[in-house]
Amino acid sequence: MTDDNGGRFPETEGTDDPFLDPAQLGRQWHEHAVLFETLLDEGRDEELAAVARDLAPGDLSEIVRPLSFGDTARVIQLLPLDLASDVLVEIDKRSVGVLMELLSIDAVADLIEEMPSDEAADVVGEMHADQAREVLAAMEPEERDEVTELLQYDPDTAGGLMAKEFITVDKTAICLDVVKAVRAMDEDDREALHFIYVTDEDGQLVGRIPLVEMLMQPWSTPVIKVMEGDPHHVEVDLDQEQVAQFVMAHDLLTLPVVDADGQLRGVIHADDVLDVMEEEATEDFGHFAGTREDLGETSPLKVARARMPWLLAALVGQIGCVFLMSHFEDALAKVVALSFFIPAIMAMGGNTGIQTSSVVVRGLATGEVDVYNLSKYLIRELATSVMTGGLIALCLYVVARLVVGNEGLALVLMVSMLTVIIFAAMVGTAVPLLLHRLGVDPALATGPFITTSNDVMAIVIYLGMATLMLKGGAV
Amino acid sequence: MTDDNGGRFPETEGTDDPFLDPAQLGRQWHEHAVLFETLLDEGRDEELAAVARDLAPGDLSEIVRPLSFGDTARVIQLLPLDLASDVLVEIDKRSVGVLMELLSIDAVADLIEEMPSDEAADVVGEMHADQAREVLAAMEPEERDEVTELLQYDPDTAGGLMAKEFITVDKTAICLDVVKAVRAMDEDDREALHFIYVTDEDGQLVGRIPLVEMLMQPWSTPVIKVMEGDPHHVEVDLDQEQVAQFVMAHDLLTLPVVDADGQLRGVIHADDVLDVMEEEATEDFGHFAGTREDLGETSPLKVARARMPWLLAALVGQIGCVFLMSHFEDALAKVVALSFFIPAIMAMGGNTGIQTSSVVVRGLATGEVDVYNLSKYLIRELATSVMTGGLIALCLYVVARLVVGNEGLALVLMVSMLTVIIFAAMVGTAVPLLLHRLGVDPALATGPFITTSNDVMAIVIYLGMATLMLKGGAV
Repeated sequence: MTDDNGGRFPETEGTDDPFLDPAQLGRQWHEHAVLFETLLDEGRDEELAAVARDLAPGDLSEIVRPLSFGDTARVIQLLPLDLASDVLVEIDKRSVGVLMELLSIDAVADLIEEMPSDEAADVVGEMHADQAREVLAAMEPEERDEVTELLQYDPDTAGGLMAKEFITVDKTAICLDVVKAVRAMDEDDREALHFIYVTDEDGQLVGRIPLVEMLMQPWSTPVIKVMEGDPHHVEVDLDQEQVAQFVMAHDLLTLPVVDADGQLRGVIHADDVLDVMEEEATEDFGHFAGTREDLGETSPLKVARARMPWLLAALVGQIGCVFLMSHFEDALAKVVALSFFIPAIMAMGGNTGIQTSSVVVRGLATGEVDVYNLSKYLIRELATSVMTGGLIALCLYVVARLVVGNEGLALVLMVSMLTVIIFAAMVGTAVPLLLHRLGVDPALATGPFITTSNDVMAIVIYLGMATLMLKGGAV
Repeated sequence: MTDDNGGRFPETEGTDDPFLDPAQLGRQWHEHAVLFETLLDEGRDEELAAVARDLAPGDLSEIVRPLSFGDTARVIQLLPLDLASDVLVEIDKRSVGVLMELLSIDAVADLIEEMPSDEAADVVGEMHADQAREVLAAMEPEERDEVTELLQYDPDTAGGLMAKEFITVDKTAICLDVVKAVRAMDEDDREALHFIYVTDEDGQLVGRIPLVEMLMQPWSTPVIKVMEGDPHHVEVDLDQEQVAQFVMAHDLLTLPVVDADGQLRGVIHADDVLDVMEEEATEDFGHFAGTREDLGETSPLKVARARMPWLLAALVGQIGCVFLMSHFEDALAKVVALSFFIPAIMAMGGNTGIQTSSVVVRGLATGEVDVYNLSKYLIRELATSVMTGGLIALCLYVVARLVVGNEGLALVLMVSMLTVIIFAAMVGTAVPLLLHRLGVDPALATGPFITTSNDVMAIVIYLGMATLMLKGGAV
C-alpha cells in the first residue's frame, strides 16, 4: 500500500474506464475474480492495483463479490479514494456494512464523503450505531448534515431513495442565476444534472427547467418564463413500490421529492428506481416460492430459518391431509388402484393453482391486473380451466381404462380431475386478488394457502366421489 | 370532434399536466376509467375531451387500458395530436397495433411522426405489413428513414431498444458547434438530452460530453479537451437482457449503441431499460410457473394454449407416476395407511424444490448467483436441507406414531421424508445452474422437470423403502 492521502488511499491516476465486453460480462467477472484471488494469495498487491485501476467501478464491484470480506477490504484499500468509493456504492449495502468494520473510522469517513448522499446514508444506515456515530463525527459538516437528514427517512420510502444533490433557484431569478448555481455545484455531482428546480418564497416546489434551456435562452431571461410549472413530484413518505410505479407510468428520469409542507427535500434518479424494481421483483419471486432469504445469503442456518415458516405451514396442512386420507381408509382398502392416481390429481391441481396465481400476483405487481375486475378474471379463468381441465381429464380417463380397466374408477377420475382443476383455477385467481384488496401482499400469502387448499380439495373431491360410487356399487 | 388540423386531431391547448395522487394511482385510474365509459356511452365527447386534456399521458394510458379498442380509439381522436401520440407510446405495443387499424392511414402517420423514433418503430413493427407500408409512405421522409432503419433490428436487441434522437459532433469541433447542434435539434427531443457524442473522421464513437459542460467552458474550447474518452457503449445486436445487465452494472442514464464498424447508430435511455427489466422479470415469473401467456390476454383459448404445453408435460410425468405406483400395489394393499402419507411426502418435496430452484433462477437473472460455483451452492443447500428436512421428518415421525401407531411405518416415513427433501434441494439447485451453463433459460425448463422428478423420487424412495421393510417384516 502506498502512503499518499493520509496513509489511507493511493492517489487517483488519470486512466479512462476501459470496459469489459458487454456480451461476456459474467465470464469476464469470474475470470477477474480468479485472477484477483491469485494475486492476493501471492501478495502481488502492486499488480492487483494496476489491474483494478483500469476497471470500471461497476465491474470491480461484481469481481469482488465472490471474495471474502477480508480480501475485498484489501482490494478496496489498494484503490484510489474516488474509485474505492464508487465500487462500494455498487456493492450491496449489507456487505458494505460488514466491510466498513474492517477499515479505520477515518478511512470510512473519507469513503462516505465521496459517495452521493443517498448512497452514503444507506451505508451509514447499515453500520452498528457506535460506528455510525463515530463515522458521522469524523465527516465534514456539510456531508454529515445531509446524511443525518436522509437517515431520518424509512429506507423503503421516497425519502430513503432520494439524494440531496440538486439545484434550486427562486422563481424571481434569471437564467444567469441558474448558470451560476450550476457552476458552484460540486464537480462530481454536476454530470447527473438534468433539471433545475424552481421554488417560491416559501421554498415550495413550483417548477422545473431542463438544463438544455440554458443553451436556448439569453441568460437575462427570467426563469419563470422558461420553467415548466407544476412538475411531477412525490412526498417523502411514499412507499418505494409506489415511487417505482409512478416513475414507470410517467417515464421520468428524475423525480423531485417534497415534504408535507411542499418543500423540495431531494431528488430520485431513474437508476435508483431500477434497483428498487429488481429488489421488489426478487422479493415477490421469493415470497411466491415461500422463502424470504437474501439471494446472496451464505449461512445455511439463516437460509433454513428463512424457509422454515412456509415449510412448517405446509406441513401443518399436509398433516391435515393425512387425517383426511385416513377417513377414506375403507375406499382405499377396497380399491387399491384408487391410490395410484392420488399424485396425478394433486399435481395437476397444484400446477393449475401455480399458473393462475402467478399470473395474478405478477400482474398485480406490474399493474397489468387490477383489483376492480374480479369477476372478469374469474370468468376468463373459468373458461380457460374448463378447456385445459377437460383435455387433461379426458387423457386421464383413457389412461385409467388402459391401466386398471375399471369403468367406474375411470369416470370418477375424469370428473374429479376436471373439478379439481376448475377449483384450483378459481382459488388461484380469487385469493391473490382478495388479499390485495385487503392490503396483504398477495405474493407473501398466496403460496402456502393455495397449495394446501388445493391438496385438501383434491383429496376430498377425488376420494369423496370414489366413496360415493363405491357405496352405489359402481366402482 | 373539432375540425382543425386536417380534420383529424384537435389543437393542443396550453394546459400544464396536473397529476393524480401518487399514493392512490390504481384507484384513481379505475375511477377515471368508469367516468370515461359513462361519458362515452352518453356521447358527451366534449366533456370527456376536457377531462382527458388535463391528465398526463402516463395516466391516460392506464385509464383507457380496461376500455374496448373502439372506445380507446374514440378517446384518442378526442385528444390533441401530441397528447394522443404520448398516450399511445405508453400503451403496450400489441394493443397499439390493433388500435391503429381503427384509424385512417393519415391519422396514424401523423401520430407516428410525433413519437420518439424507437417507439415509432415498435408501433410500426406491430402493424400488418400492408398497413405498415402505407403508413410509412404517408410519413415525412426523415422520420420514415429513421423508422425504416430501426425496423431492421431484432426488437429484443440493443438496436431494437435504441432511438435515433441524439447529437454527434466531430472531434475537431469546438463547444460552439455543440451549442449550435443542440439549438438545431427538434424541441420535443431536446429535453431528454444529457450527453453529446463525439466521433472521429470515420464516424467512430470516440467520446461523450455531458451537456452541463457547455455551461462550464468558454464556447471556443475544442470538444476534445472537455470530452470523456472511450465511453461505455454496446453493439446493435446485443441481447436486451445483457443490455439491461450492463446498464444496471454501470448505473447509466443513456447508453450509445454502435454497429459492427464502431459507428454510432443510436442511444438507449434508462427508462427503456426499466421496461425491459419488467418484461424479463414477468417472463421469468411466468416460465417458472409454467405459462407463457401475456398478463393482459383476455381470450381464454389463447391463455389455455399458453398453459397447455406445461400441463401436458406434467401430465405425462404424472402418468408415469401412476404406473410407478401400481408397482407398489402389494405394499399399498397390505398397509393401507401407507397411502395416507403420499400427499405429505410429495408436497414437502415439491415445496423444497420450488424454494431452492426459485432462489437459483432469480439469482441467475439478477446476477446474484453465478454459474461458476455449483459446488458452493450444492454444499449450502445440502446443509440447509439437512436442517429443514430433519425437523420436518421428526414432526412427521411423531404424527405417524400418533395416527397409525406403527413404529416401522413411522421410521420409514421419517427416513424417506428426509431423503426426499435433500434430493429435492439438490435437484432444485443443480438443474437450473446446469441448464444455464448449457445456454437454456433456467426459468423455462426448471418448473416441469423439477416437479416431476421430485414426484417420481418421492414415490420410489417412500414406497420402495416401505416395500423393503415389509419384506423384512418390520412394518
